[in-house]
Order: sequence, then C-alpha cells, then structure tokens
Amino acid sequence: MKHDRIWNFNAGPAALPLEVLEKVHEQWFNFQGSGMCEIEMSHRSKEFDAIHNNTIAMMKKLLGLGDNYHVLFVQGGASQQFGMLPMGFLDKNKTADYINTGTWSTKAIKEAQLFGNVNVAFDGNEVDFMRLPKQEELKLSANAEYLHFTSNNTIKGTQFFDFPKTENGIPLVCDMSSDILSHRFDPAPFGMMYAGAQKNLGPSGVTLVILRDDFYQKASTNVTSMLKYKTHVDKNSLYNTPNTFGIYLMGLVLNWIDGLGGLEGVEKINKAKADLLYGTMKESNGYYRCPVAEDSRSWMNVCFRLPSEELEGMFVAQGLEAGFCGMKGHRSVGGCRISMYNASPLQAIEDVTAFMKDFMAKNG
Amino acid sequence: MKHDRIWNFNAGPAALPLEVLEKVHEQWFNFQGSGMCEIEMSHRSKEFDAIHNNTIAMMKKLLGLGDNYHVLFVQGGASQQFGMLPMGFLDKNKTADYINTGTWSTKAIKEAQLFGNVNVAFDGNEVDFMRLPKQEELKLSANAEYLHFTSNNTIKGTQFFDFPKTENGIPLVCDMSSDILSHRFDPAPFGMMYAGAQKNLGPSGVTLVILRDDFYQKASTNVTSMLKYKTHVDKNSLYNTPNTFGIYLMGLVLNWIDGLGGLEGVEKINKAKADLLYGTMKESNGYYRCPVAEDSRSWMNVCFRLPSEELEGMFVAQGLEAGFCGMKGHRSVGGCRISMYNASPLQAIEDVTAFMKDFMAKNG
Repeated sequence: MKHDRIWNFNAGPAALPLEVLEKVHEQWFNFQGSGMCEIEMSHRSKEFDAIHNNTIAMMKKLLGLGDNYHVLFVQGGASQQFGMLPMGFLDKNKTADYINTGTWSTKAIKEAQLFGNVNVAFDGNEVDFMRLPKQEELKLSANAEYLHFTSNNTIKGTQFFDFPKTENGIPLVCDMSSDILSHRFDPAPFGMMYAGAQKNLGPSGVTLVILRDDFYQKASTNVTSMLKYKTHVDKNSLYNTPNTFGIYLMGLVLNWIDGLGGLEGVEKINKAKADLLYGTMKESNGYYRCPVAEDSRSWMNVCFRLPSEELEGMFVAQGLEAGFCGMKGHRSVGGCRISMYNASPLQAIEDVTAFMKDFMAKNG
Repeated sequence: MKHDRIWNFNAGPAALPLEVLEKVHEQWFNFQGSGMCEIEMSHRSKEFDAIHNNTIAMMKKLLGLGDNYHVLFVQGGASQQFGMLPMGFLDKNKTADYINTGTWSTKAIKEAQLFGNVNVAFDGNEVDFMRLPKQEELKLSANAEYLHFTSNNTIKGTQFFDFPKTENGIPLVCDMSSDILSHRFDPAPFGMMYAGAQKNLGPSGVTLVILRDDFYQKASTNVTSMLKYKTHVDKNSLYNTPNTFGIYLMGLVLNWIDGLGGLEGVEKINKAKADLLYGTMKESNGYYRCPVAEDSRSWMNVCFRLPSEELEGMFVAQGLEAGFCGMKGHRSVGGCRISMYNASPLQAIEDVTAFMKDFMAKNG
C-alpha cells in the first residue's frame, strides 16, 4: 500500500484519512506561507482564528446545527465530561436519567452520583450489555434534568441508531465519542453532545462539546474557571490555549467528510462496510460469531469470536502479518474486534473480509 | 531560511526545534515501520508505551528527579492545574501561600480561594509586576500546605532564578509553563511542578505535572476521577486516552535538549541569547527600553518599549516583513516582546538584534 501503510483497525486513537495526513505533511514546515508549522502558531493569530472558525462552521454544517448551539473544543476527553456534566447540571435536589450500556456509561453514572440523584433508566448489566434497550423498557423520571446515553459502545460493539425519546422536552445528553458523524440523525432533542476526538474526528487530546443554548443556560457557575461551561462559551474555547493542532486536524477531517457528501455520503459508506463485514460473518456459518443482538450491532466496532481462543490468537497474529492491525478484542472481553471508523475505507473491509475467508478456509 | 521559515517569537504555542519537526515529517506516514502515523497509534500499544516511557525517563534525567517523583501527562493546561491543585490540597481549614507576580499567579490565587485560605505572601500589584520579590519581602505562613509561585511571567517579562525558600520543609509548588528546562535548578524543594507544554516542551494540549510522592500522598481523593491526582498516578497517565501525539513530540524535544548537553547546555545558550538581546537594548541608549527591574528580567520573554507607540507599530510590521514573527507585546500591556524559548537558536537573536540596530539607525 502507499507509504507501506497497513489497515489500522485500532479502537482509538485510530486511523486518520490518508488525504488528511497528506495535507498536513505537505504544509508541515510552512503552513500557508506563514513560515511556520501550524503546531507552532499562536492561538491568538488570525491564521488560527480561520482554522478554528472553519472547524466550528464545518461541525455545524455537517450536523445541521442552528445558531442556538455552542461548539466548543476542550480537553480531557469524554472522561472529563463524565464529571463536568453533573457538576454543572446536578445537585442533591436534582435527578438525571442514565442508560447503562457498558463501560463508558458505567463510568459516567459513577461520576454523576457524586453530585446528584441518578436514575438508571436501563441497566444493561442484566443482558451482559449484548443488546440495547427498546424504548418501552426505559424507566424514565418525570423530572429529570437530562437523559444521558452512550451512542456507541466500543468494547461490546453495540450502537444506537434510533435514539431514546423523552417526554416534556427533557434534553438528551450523549457521549458520541465513538460514532459521531458516522450517520445522519436529528440533533434537535440534544441538550449536549460530546466526544473525544480520537475515533471519528481527529487526534487524541481534543474534546468536542456541543451545547444547546437553553440547556447550557442552566449550568452552574459555582465551579473553577476551567470546569465552568460558561468560561469556554464566553471565550469561544480560547480562555486558555486549546489543542491548536488537534482543532486544525479536526477541521481537515470535517472538510474531508464534507467532500464525501457529508453525513449522507459517510452513512452510505459505513453501511456498506457493516453489511460486508457482518455479512461475511453470517456466511461463515458460525465460524465468525458476533455475540451482539442483531438490531444492536455497531457499524464502528465489530466484535466477534472464533471457535477457540487459540484460533483467535492465530487470527490476530496472522492478520497483523497480512497488514491488518488492531484486531484484538478489548482486554476486558477478549475475542476479536475490527474498529472501522469513518477513516477506514470500504477497501479496508474488502481486504480484511477476503483475509477472513482465507483464514477460515485454512483453519476451518 | 530552510523551508522558507521565519523566526517565530510567539509567546506560545511557539517555535519547535527544526530538528524535531524534521524527524516527525520523516516518519509521518509510517512510524518506525508500524505502517501508521504516530498520531493514529493506540495508547495501549507497545510502540506508544516505548514513546511514553522515553518521555518520562528523559524528563527525569534532564531535571535530575529521583524515583520519588511521579511524572504525569494530563490535559487542560496550567489553568486546569490552578483549580485542581487547591481542590486536591486545600480545604477551609488549610492555608496555602501564593506569590503574586502577574496574570497567571492572579488566576491561580483566584481558583485557590474557592477551596481554602490563601495568604498572598507578596503582592506584585504594588510594583506593577515590574520586579520579583526578594526573599526577605515574603510574608510566609508557618503552617502553609505549600508555597505557590509562577517561575516566569510571559506578559510582564520577569523570571525567578533564585527560587523562594520556605521553612519547616513546606513544599514549593510552581507553574513552570514558560521556563521549564531553560536553566538548571535544584528540584528537591518542589512538591509539585507543572507546565503547559506549548512553550518549552512541545505542542499545546498536553500538560506536564510532576509530583513528589510525599506531597502527592496528601492529595484529597474526594473529587471526580479525572480531577484526582491518584487516578493519573495509579494509571501512569493512561486512565483515559492522553494526548499521544503531544507526548511523542515532547519526547523528541527532550531528546533534542539532551543532545544539546541537557540543562547545562541549554542554560549556556539561553544566557547568551539574553545577554545579546538585553545588551543590544542597553547599547541603544534608551531607544529600546526594558521596563523590568534588571535582576528580574526574563530570559524567555523580553518585553520592551520604543520611543512611541507609532514606532512600536512600525517595528512589529517591518519586523514581520523582515522575517520575525510575534514581536507584538501582550494586548494587556502593549509595547513589544520577543519570546525566545529553548527552540529559538542564538542565530535568531543575532538576526533580530541586527534588525533592531538597523531599525534604530533608520528611525532613531
């Protein structure tokens, strides 16, 4: 492959589009005639302003967000938001609903319990996180400040396509770290969306936070400057130095998505990838077995088992030899996993499914 | 100049060593035969482990830190530490001493006051922050948890070379964002040192925190996971995804410093740069005037005035034309400023002082 690259199926940090890497490489020493690398550029310069504004504008365009949304770039990953969200929106007299669909939701719930009342509207532990809840299974509170969920679960390989619904305009809050911008959805019910960048958006070290203004207005300001959403909204994410290089890369990734036809174009490619990979597994008559319920299967992280742990070890090792990296399942669940975020092209899945068929033929 | 680059005197994000940029560029598409860019690499991979361990080891080597120090890479910049420090170490029954030498100290004090008692041991407002305190001016508390100071002040252009002293082993805590690794010092009195990377260490988006174990042991754990120092110490900064690319770049910068002869070598170069630039100003007979007291002048950020604001505007604009970027003073103080962190070579200062002489000859 070009530059002797391999297909990178890491769960995150993950593959970036080759076109984006090429653009960065090309302007590395001298960004647009500035005489310096983008990474050396002041966050107060007009050049960085243009980069920053492009990234915001492209995010709004791709997600179809109106002027009532604030698009912020902060630091600390989704894990920081697990704490910052309840710090801002809960107290001992307030309740939030949380859907527990795996490791990340569990962590988010734990942090929220430090600040307010948490109603677990669905506890996926009871189904070993192997499926997502149906709407009628959700035990929602009438007075919740918000309903929190994780849209895609990297470890177990589940993904929401029909988002949960609330009554009385209770806003949705969603950790979209691992599937943001992977398919179309209606942003209107969301009070807040957030995502660590290192899966579908760019490099690690920058965190996207999108706040709907009416929801944002309720946030407490009785916290430190950096933990206050108001600080970042008022200063357009420039209260202190942001991850300038991360915002630049994210902008390039968003431009690239736009060039693919926006979320409609990306959705088409992601569906084709998922159909091909899950289809290959189906045709294997149980050799490659996905333990996740069919209607909950993720397009981003495809988890599967082989007939034995020994074969799984061979599959991962021989896969790496053949140019496929990152196919080992998360250490907490074992098995195999192929993470195929937006930056993984259909070609990568065509190649790996050919490898899977070949491996099965030799070791079936 | 090579790659048509200019001399970058930005206050931060700032110039990186060209040798480091060249190394990144060279391995951009395929890091050490891995088939991917470092920025696409899993933070749980053995390749990243090696990068991470090198960065920690080099930091310990350069600063001469023993095994009783924890070296962490977190996110949020020094501003996040302004809040996280008192959250961890203060409460309403505890006191910390703070030396106020400018904007950054003032912010740190404000955050600390949210959590505990703050004794301002020296208030630089009284001298318009134009000089640093002498040891005998410090009004220290007998029972302080720590004494906090900012070692270098980017906006006013002051820098501590003789660090403050405490009694009874009260630990020093220092925001070293803008001068860490610029000269030798004894780390023994420090309970904590921290620094946003974007001046002397690497790109923005990664924050260095160094904790001495006996001090660290006193930190509260009654906060969210991400705000707990214990989380980052226990997981070696890998509780969640760190800024992997930032840690890689920082490691390259540290290797580069090591190649210059470590802090001794860097100190020699920085002193030569400072002598040349301040010397040029002195020889100008008041044309270039540094308002900072002589014994408090920074080697990193050299602030100066010209005879009029009009001349200052011309100086900055003609300087940019001549290939010198970032010479405008901070918006809060005006005037001119040359920030010359470790990555600015002596040649940059030779060139800019030649320009200064030329400008004065034409506009004197």
